[in-house]
Amino acid sequence: MIETPYLLFLGDAPDQLAAKVAQGIKDWRPEYALGQYRMEGCKADMKLPDMDLKAAKEAGAKTLVIGVANRGGIISPAWKKVLVEALEEGFDLASGLHNLLRDEEDLAAVAKACGRQLHDVRVPSVKYPIANGVKRTGKRCLAVGTDCSVGKMYTALAMDKSMRAKGMKSTFRATGQTGILITGDGVPLDAVVADFMAGSIEYLTPDNDPDHWDLIEGQGSLFHVSYSGVTMALVHGGQPDALILCHEPTREHMRGLPGYSLPSLEALRDTALTLAKVANPDCQVVGISVNTQHMSEDEAIAYLGKVEAEMGLPAVDPFRQGADRLADALAEL
Amino acid sequence: MIETPYLLFLGDAPDQLAAKVAQGIKDWRPEYALGQYRMEGCKADMKLPDMDLKAAKEAGAKTLVIGVANRGGIISPAWKKVLVEALEEGFDLASGLHNLLRDEEDLAAVAKACGRQLHDVRVPSVKYPIANGVKRTGKRCLAVGTDCSVGKMYTALAMDKSMRAKGMKSTFRATGQTGILITGDGVPLDAVVADFMAGSIEYLTPDNDPDHWDLIEGQGSLFHVSYSGVTMALVHGGQPDALILCHEPTREHMRGLPGYSLPSLEALRDTALTLAKVANPDCQVVGISVNTQHMSEDEAIAYLGKVEAEMGLPAVDPFRQGADRLADALAEL
Repeated sequence: MIETPYLLFLGDAPDQLAAKVAQGIKDWRPEYALGQYRMEGCKADMKLPDMDLKAAKEAGAKTLVIGVANRGGIISPAWKKVLVEALEEGFDLASGLHNLLRDEEDLAAVAKACGRQLHDVRVPSVKYPIANGVKRTGKRCLAVGTDCSVGKMYTALAMDKSMRAKGMKSTFRATGQTGILITGDGVPLDAVVADFMAGSIEYLTPDNDPDHWDLIEGQGSLFHVSYSGVTMALVHGGQPDALILCHEPTREHMRGLPGYSLPSLEALRDTALTLAKVANPDCQVVGISVNTQHMSEDEAIAYLGKVEAEMGLPAVDPFRQGADRLADALAEL
Repeated sequence: MIETPYLLFLGDAPDQLAAKVAQGIKDWRPEYALGQYRMEGCKADMKLPDMDLKAAKEAGAKTLVIGVANRGGIISPAWKKVLVEALEEGFDLASGLHNLLRDEEDLAAVAKACGRQLHDVRVPSVKYPIANGVKRTGKRCLAVGTDCSVGKMYTALAMDKSMRAKGMKSTFRATGQTGILITGDGVPLDAVVADFMAGSIEYLTPDNDPDHWDLIEGQGSLFHVSYSGVTMALVHGGQPDALILCHEPTREHMRGLPGYSLPSLEALRDTALTLAKVANPDCQVVGISVNTQHMSEDEAIAYLGKVEAEMGLPAVDPFRQGADRLADALAEL
């Protein structure tokens, strides 16, 4: 668990997009985002108070989160200076960069001397069990996609927000580094050793209140040959009661796989549900989340109406419309 | 790659079953099994020449393979003495034990001093790529099971043997530690990091002659919730042209999962084929391998006949009957 609240480190981000981790925290966990730390030349702005380390510490910040991706994932000397100072000021550090904080000898030494934690969220920090398939109490929902990167994390976070607003019991369960940094906890599933993948998801979504929903962040796609094994572990380790189908309708081929076309929503529904019923015979597909960012408003509305009629399920773009109808679908289960 | 031929280390095996790795090498790669090394109290016998280290070295053995499993996977002091001497005599060591050779400080030091290799086949030794899904030349066959441990490795090895006898081009591709020790090469798939599972199988089964068959050792089951993600990576990374369905008809529930019943062969066929066609639209299910060890000869023959009629595919027990009919099914594709 990463201690909150955070000071968001934007470094020398070349543009707003480079700071998408910080943006995610600001959007989904604003209560964690006390302020931002920007270096000279930083082109990103989260519209948060600019704070130096001392001011953030006094305001109660516990962890400096690297909210920016840089070319090659390298930790530059200019960054390093700030990170060392942050440890000395009493901050923990959290990062999803490819290059690990712990592999930087100076950071590791200073963290040890100061008694601070280095959280490299790409690397599992837990010895996960092998999945035992035992039925757990509480309810679970998993977002599955026709492809990778179609909006599964966004969908789960939007549903979580809507459900909390409605007074439902809900927890977003992160399975990737951005989600882990946003919420401060989770499983970096793509870095887990094969035998323990499903077990790590059982660990992440334990017994809970009968009316509590875990909203499990999806990864990959059952139809994406590079990552389908990871998705399968979510379907069986998560033993979901409900599936949300996620889709991006303008994509011409599977991400990174020219020559592989996307499956239909019907094919995704049938395959995902067949597999999910192995772990939970009562599982149902309850809604569809469509990423319409590359469509006009009119096109998007028309497309969503068509999908809703064809599939007989609520179909929404949670970015345009919010996720209330998907949350309602869970409430009705 | 582990250098062959081998001297098989049986240690102080309490019974024949404890030496099943050695038995596998003797059965499937007799040309690798120059001799056996037995310690006082050893109750296993491969009916190979008993050799000390010097004699085996003179006979040309290159690697001492630990062909025995012991309680807890521990390397005892009595074993250690032999292993150190083997390194000093110029042998490499190979092991599938949980406790790694490389983690034993004395073995690591002697191996380094003598310039010898320690092969811990449970641990990946290659930095595998992420799968790219590009179609490869040559043909591939994958054994998929209704459950774990139903005879997938045995089936692939028996088919390989039959195909070689018929003059077909065939390579058994190991994906688990026993298979790797038998053949000297392979991918320890259950120990590979999630993101690289499918890529490791692409790496294991590269472009080949158009009439060459890779016989890929299966792992887990699409219907076993603990390991299904591993199986999925085989289905998509292997891009098989042919599937063999493997089954053990007397099992009352999925291995290690009370309350989970086995799928029917029809369900396995439909699910595995649907998923396999994502990576290879021409994939076909060509035969059925049944492990009838818990049935009488009459029961087994009756059961195989019934399955063959119901499924419209050749159904054999390769242990009782050999795998010629499965090899023929590949030849006809």
